[in-house]
Amino acid sequence: MTDTKAPSPTDPPITTVEDGGPRVRAVPDGDNMERLVCPDCGFVNYENPKIVVGTVAMWEGRVLLCRRNIMPRKGHWTIPAGYMELNETTEAGARREAMEEANADLADLQVLAIYNIPRISQVQIIYRGNLATPDVAAGPESQEVALFEWNDIPWHDLAFPSVHWALKHFDEVRGFDSHPPFGNPPGDFGDMTR
Amino acid sequence: MTDTKAPSPTDPPITTVEDGGPRVRAVPDGDNMERLVCPDCGFVNYENPKIVVGTVAMWEGRVLLCRRNIMPRKGHWTIPAGYMELNETTEAGARREAMEEANADLADLQVLAIYNIPRISQVQIIYRGNLATPDVAAGPESQEVALFEWNDIPWHDLAFPSVHWALKHFDEVRGFDSHPPFGNPPGDFGDMTR
Repeated sequence: MTDTKAPSPTDPPITTVEDGGPRVRAVPDGDNMERLVCPDCGFVNYENPKIVVGTVAMWEGRVLLCRRNIMPRKGHWTIPAGYMELNETTEAGARREAMEEANADLADLQVLAIYNIPRISQVQIIYRGNLATPDVAAGPESQEVALFEWNDIPWHDLAFPSVHWALKHFDEVRGFDSHPPFGNPPGDFGDMTR
Repeated sequence: MTDTKAPSPTDPPITTVEDGGPRVRAVPDGDNMERLVCPDCGFVNYENPKIVVGTVAMWEGRVLLCRRNIMPRKGHWTIPAGYMELNETTEAGARREAMEEANADLADLQVLAIYNIPRISQVQIIYRGNLATPDVAAGPESQEVALFEWNDIPWHDLAFPSVHWALKHFDEVRGFDSHPPFGNPPGDFGDMTR
């Protein structure tokens, strides 16, 4: 192991430095696409789509939204959602994101939708649920959080097309005990230029 | 760019060699976990759970199974399933896997289940559907493929716990027009030692 540059006091803490790793583009045996391969050990770094987990979370008819404090779409409103971490379940990830972004404790989770954004290789698994308490508060990734009456939702200031889809789909099945998961609106793949 | 070793005639084709890439363990700004970071450009290699897509595919009451020709669980039976590729949708991935493993053309796909195997950071999105034709044939990753009558399914020779879950869950909703997605059987996280 070799340090490739001296750390400065403002660098993040460095615990391991390695010069190896997957860095050769090649087609592995039995595969049909190029992958990043390590020429030292043969490890293949398969790149995979990423999973976003999130929740349409309600308190007495009001919906929890968070105003983003991070790029992209900083300053715009979203449901609590984010990338799954390793070694958690989709439901645990949705709960963690609500806690991190809004200090929100979720209950009664059911799958609302599975959305695909293939342009950015993203799969979104969206739940619907209730807040265990209305005590919500902005975490570091939120400028503010709020419980909106349905008619007060800032429809023209939502962060992403899929936030709009999730709210509309939730509204369609609001009184249902159960339902199959929604997918993308037909022909819509979440292009932000719409 | 530098070649770190000379390619031999049996090596896969190498088109790019880079010495850089994410190789430093550090906590990025605003994050709370260590990630692999590139000390040259600052790129953060977030490791994420992987998505498996698969299908319980039927032809006139018989179910398509594939005997695996690859590790792990080579020689055991599975539904057609595999890792999603970049820039495809979950449904397109399920169709691609059925075509690759069994030359099977799928129709009428609906979501059957979302399973979580957090020990190996895997999320499985399983569809149910029909074969457009009964003309199936083993692809390179299958030793053989077959359409099984329900009572002839090799229950004790299935490759993974989630194959068992998917077949049992399909059977529970066989006559239903629609249903919410199943999750893992309660308390079961797919541990192979069960």
